[in-house]
Amino acid sequence: MNKTPDQSEFAAPKVTTGALPASRKVYTHPPEAPDLAVPHREIDLHPSANEPAVRVYDTSGPYSDPSVTIDVEKGLARDRRAWVLERGGVEEYEGRDVRPEDNGGAEGKYLAREFPVKHKPLRGVGDAPVTQYEFAKAGIITKEMIYVATRENLGRAQAVEGAAARVENGESFGAEIPEFITPEFVRSEIARGRAIIPCNINHAELEPQIIGRNFLVKINANIGNSAVTSSVEEEVDKMVWATRWGADNVMDLSTGRNIHNTREWIIRNSSVPIGTVPIYQALEKVNGVAEDLTWEVYRDTLIEQCEQGVDYFTIHAGVRLAYIHLTVDRVCGIVSRGGSIMAKWMLTHHKESFLYEHFEEICDIMRRYDVSFSLGDGLRPGAIADANDRAQFAELETLGELTQIAWAKGCQVMIEGPGHVPMHKIKVNMDKQLKVCGEAPFYTLGPLTTDIAPGYDHITSGIGAAMIGWFGTSMLCYVTPKEHLGLPNRDDVKVGVITYKLAAHAADLGKGHPAAQIRDDAVSRARFDFRWEDQFNLALDPETARDFHDQTLPKEAHKTAHFCSMCGPKFCSMKITQDVRDYADGLSDNERADLERRAAEAEAGMKDMSEKFVERGGEIYLKTEG
Amino acid sequence: MNKTPDQSEFAAPKVTTGALPASRKVYTHPPEAPDLAVPHREIDLHPSANEPAVRVYDTSGPYSDPSVTIDVEKGLARDRRAWVLERGGVEEYEGRDVRPEDNGGAEGKYLAREFPVKHKPLRGVGDAPVTQYEFAKAGIITKEMIYVATRENLGRAQAVEGAAARVENGESFGAEIPEFITPEFVRSEIARGRAIIPCNINHAELEPQIIGRNFLVKINANIGNSAVTSSVEEEVDKMVWATRWGADNVMDLSTGRNIHNTREWIIRNSSVPIGTVPIYQALEKVNGVAEDLTWEVYRDTLIEQCEQGVDYFTIHAGVRLAYIHLTVDRVCGIVSRGGSIMAKWMLTHHKESFLYEHFEEICDIMRRYDVSFSLGDGLRPGAIADANDRAQFAELETLGELTQIAWAKGCQVMIEGPGHVPMHKIKVNMDKQLKVCGEAPFYTLGPLTTDIAPGYDHITSGIGAAMIGWFGTSMLCYVTPKEHLGLPNRDDVKVGVITYKLAAHAADLGKGHPAAQIRDDAVSRARFDFRWEDQFNLALDPETARDFHDQTLPKEAHKTAHFCSMCGPKFCSMKITQDVRDYADGLSDNERADLERRAAEAEAGMKDMSEKFVERGGEIYLKTEG
Repeated sequence: MNKTPDQSEFAAPKVTTGALPASRKVYTHPPEAPDLAVPHREIDLHPSANEPAVRVYDTSGPYSDPSVTIDVEKGLARDRRAWVLERGGVEEYEGRDVRPEDNGGAEGKYLAREFPVKHKPLRGVGDAPVTQYEFAKAGIITKEMIYVATRENLGRAQAVEGAAARVENGESFGAEIPEFITPEFVRSEIARGRAIIPCNINHAELEPQIIGRNFLVKINANIGNSAVTSSVEEEVDKMVWATRWGADNVMDLSTGRNIHNTREWIIRNSSVPIGTVPIYQALEKVNGVAEDLTWEVYRDTLIEQCEQGVDYFTIHAGVRLAYIHLTVDRVCGIVSRGGSIMAKWMLTHHKESFLYEHFEEICDIMRRYDVSFSLGDGLRPGAIADANDRAQFAELETLGELTQIAWAKGCQVMIEGPGHVPMHKIKVNMDKQLKVCGEAPFYTLGPLTTDIAPGYDHITSGIGAAMIGWFGTSMLCYVTPKEHLGLPNRDDVKVGVITYKLAAHAADLGKGHPAAQIRDDAVSRARFDFRWEDQFNLALDPETARDFHDQTLPKEAHKTAHFCSMCGPKFCSMKITQDVRDYADGLSDNERADLERRAAEAEAGMKDMSEKFVERGGEIYLKTEG
Repeated sequence: MNKTPDQSEFAAPKVTTGALPASRKVYTHPPEAPDLAVPHREIDLHPSANEPAVRVYDTSGPYSDPSVTIDVEKGLARDRRAWVLERGGVEEYEGRDVRPEDNGGAEGKYLAREFPVKHKPLRGVGDAPVTQYEFAKAGIITKEMIYVATRENLGRAQAVEGAAARVENGESFGAEIPEFITPEFVRSEIARGRAIIPCNINHAELEPQIIGRNFLVKINANIGNSAVTSSVEEEVDKMVWATRWGADNVMDLSTGRNIHNTREWIIRNSSVPIGTVPIYQALEKVNGVAEDLTWEVYRDTLIEQCEQGVDYFTIHAGVRLAYIHLTVDRVCGIVSRGGSIMAKWMLTHHKESFLYEHFEEICDIMRRYDVSFSLGDGLRPGAIADANDRAQFAELETLGELTQIAWAKGCQVMIEGPGHVPMHKIKVNMDKQLKVCGEAPFYTLGPLTTDIAPGYDHITSGIGAAMIGWFGTSMLCYVTPKEHLGLPNRDDVKVGVITYKLAAHAADLGKGHPAAQIRDDAVSRARFDFRWEDQFNLALDPETARDFHDQTLPKEAHKTAHFCSMCGPKFCSMKITQDVRDYADGLSDNERADLERRAAEAEAGMKDMSEKFVERGGEIYLKTEG
């Protein structure tokens, strides 16, 4: 606010608002806390479907509610501040002044405009519980817990009949997914360290969300400007855009100048948790010279970001001096930026990492604001050749050690994972993480299952993400088509988000989440009934689905046509199936009985044949071998 | 040739020719048959890499060899005719005349131009072996077998040192991948029915290729015009385009008019095997009225296509009358076009399928031309809700029965699989197929792992394809972004091919194929060394990789820059790792010894801690439960 002269030059960020096609925002007021309004999206179907609207998880925040007036200059409503204040144990205080180095020394027209409104920060006082972990351990159910329980249930209440069967039918690799999520279940999962609600007490704009193996798999979208390109306006727009398409979390990975101001705009306008990697900003404060980093600069950066309301910090405290030489023979060395910065610092000073040495102090700071740990995998493999090596797993074991310390200090914790891992080496990552990190939520990047497809790494990694999500990873960090090649633009962000959303959903289906298949089945019925509009509206990306259809059959009449351009009117199998079904309906009892008899005969016959074939097959193999 | 008047209106198909970036075509003359010239592509690296060129599998045919003159009007060279003739047992004959109904009765300007050159067909005579299966069973190694053995080995000869370790290291789910492929190994796999070389004796333009669980995973691209849209020119172009980017096989799924002439242009210009679904053309011959189909019309269509040189036929002979009612309660009924056509025919006539009833006769026809079976999954699930149901598996068991008959008749066989299958239900498909179909190669469409992402079904299915390929599927049928929405255009074909190529490669890596990782490692080294050009050139899609990079850093100088736009110059972790490496190289022996000591201490310490944590963790859980 003290730099008004030049600031009129900066345009207010423009963001995308409005409902998604055929969608309504609905709010649930949970009986345990009727003042809460938990958002879902309901997708209305064509009257001919004679089906209820499909309720889906909604990450898009107030932006998709036409009844809310959005003013990016003011930020979103700060309802959550009251929840924090009413339970006590916190104090409002003046907070740290913004310093020139917080924005990389940017001045005049190079300095991004400050966010116009200033809020005083809160922090915990004394030993009273502040974090969700502390409340959970104390047996207290917070409003955040009630909120996420309601949010997770989606249409489960309606679907509860078949829920047990669906959970049973899935393969959850030891996860314990309940038929219905209660606030008490949420509390118990957080107390066990198996789930977290990233929710800095200063992020009052937040719609809380839970990350854990027994909940829906979440996804994260990375945004952030870099020294080379992009602006505050672009990044705020990307954040809103990413959440519109399904990003549950956003990490602001900005580097270069204006980090502080960019982040303030993002947080004040974000209804999803925001994560950062504080070492990036700390490095800017020492002009990019890794060896000049100090604990004091890092500590100051943590407090700065805690006060702003960052919900989780990636902290690479597991990269220890003794592990660095384990990376020397790798094909791609250390690919984590944070990991390589710390490696350089340690080698230069020949000292243990200050993040590791000061870990308890870091916990004390983060606890006061309930900032969650995302313990960074600084030694993750950057090539499939380096997957699952000694460096990677040595660090993972240290992360397990740090998890115990953070829990003892009252903090929420999740653990970051790779990276680049071929398919046959994925599951051991999950199994080892669960074992050494006490089941703390796993948060993985990809993993990419091959390195030969730059430009398509959203897909090489979407494969690994779906698999590791199924095996038990709680959150998947997206990869865009630009990975390894450039900074993602708006379109890349959308493709990355949709790819990861479908991967996370595939994982939910695999695990047997009770309500997951409701949407799939609705799409399939729409497809079978030729309800094209419903098929588009139910899609993760209705715009693209509609556009692809219209490229060949643009006319409105074709939206109700009982065929599409793939097969044309004569060859549509769905149309023929409909005919078959009508025919079957018209069969007499005698005809039907005859069919049943033949089916039984055929199946019995096959069993005999099948046994014979196994014998005969065995003979064939014996004859031809060698 | 008898319709010249109108035919000048049709433009000759334009196809994409020329080498891929930094690529050379190389031909190997196998010692067992030096007259064969087996193509590979070698990608040259920048001199600073000091690495040999990377040899990759090459499906692009003569089109990517600048020394070959391409004339689409003449077709490709017909070298393979000599191989077939020299081993005898075949006769040249006049062949069937083209009839108006072969092209759906198209006339005048609506009739696609005939291919300008006419070749007399060959067929087998008497009991002499004709098919690769028969030769293999007789202990005879054909030129096709020598060809594919050489083709499969890629750079294995160079990589043979670590080959055993890589095979050992992979998880192949019971496949028996050798370190090195010999012609005798190929023969034994074909004789066991575990692999096929789809190679109609009339497809003389073919570069043979093997499909089987112990070989590289192959992909298929579907093309074909429909009654609604597209032309001969487009389809020939799509075929060449698909193989340029890696399609190992192409299926011509044309419907509507001009099926015969379109197919002739495609086959005469195709170096990859061409598959079809003959029932589509048969249906056109009876004006699209399924109940008017007869065995005679179908038989005539088989012979027509055998003479043209189609390499494999999808035949839905496993859809039996008795199984149809098993689909009535499905969400999506019967989604296979062939399956639904046959279902309608059977219900109308209340008779068993003529494909099932005449199966032995079909075998006799296909054997004479060595057309391989692709036993169609007419009852595959069209929605994840329908996956692995009784209808699907009843048909699969029948396909197992038919496989045995086809083998007894001397035919090559592969089996088609689903479709739409959530992740946890994929593996049982593979296991069951191996068991009931005597390990005949499995050829699956996807499977799609969720139904909520129309517009992204190349990805929903790429996930399932990578997984089922890893589990043992031999060929993956691609899905394009337009699946369920429209007919794929050129761009969609490319995206589908690249997606499936990377999925197949991920599967090869997972299985531990000895030479698979060579290309990944070359990309990773290029990435680490900032050899941007090499990274692009080694990519499955060099054009897109380069384009994505240049969107943010277009200048030529940036191609050698030691940073990219994602992180900018200060934050590049790879640059820092290089610094770390240089530093590590400079360590004294004492310093190095000190590091080793600390690493050992840290790891020992962690082990203690880790045990303590398990105990402590156990306590924590006990306290908080309930």
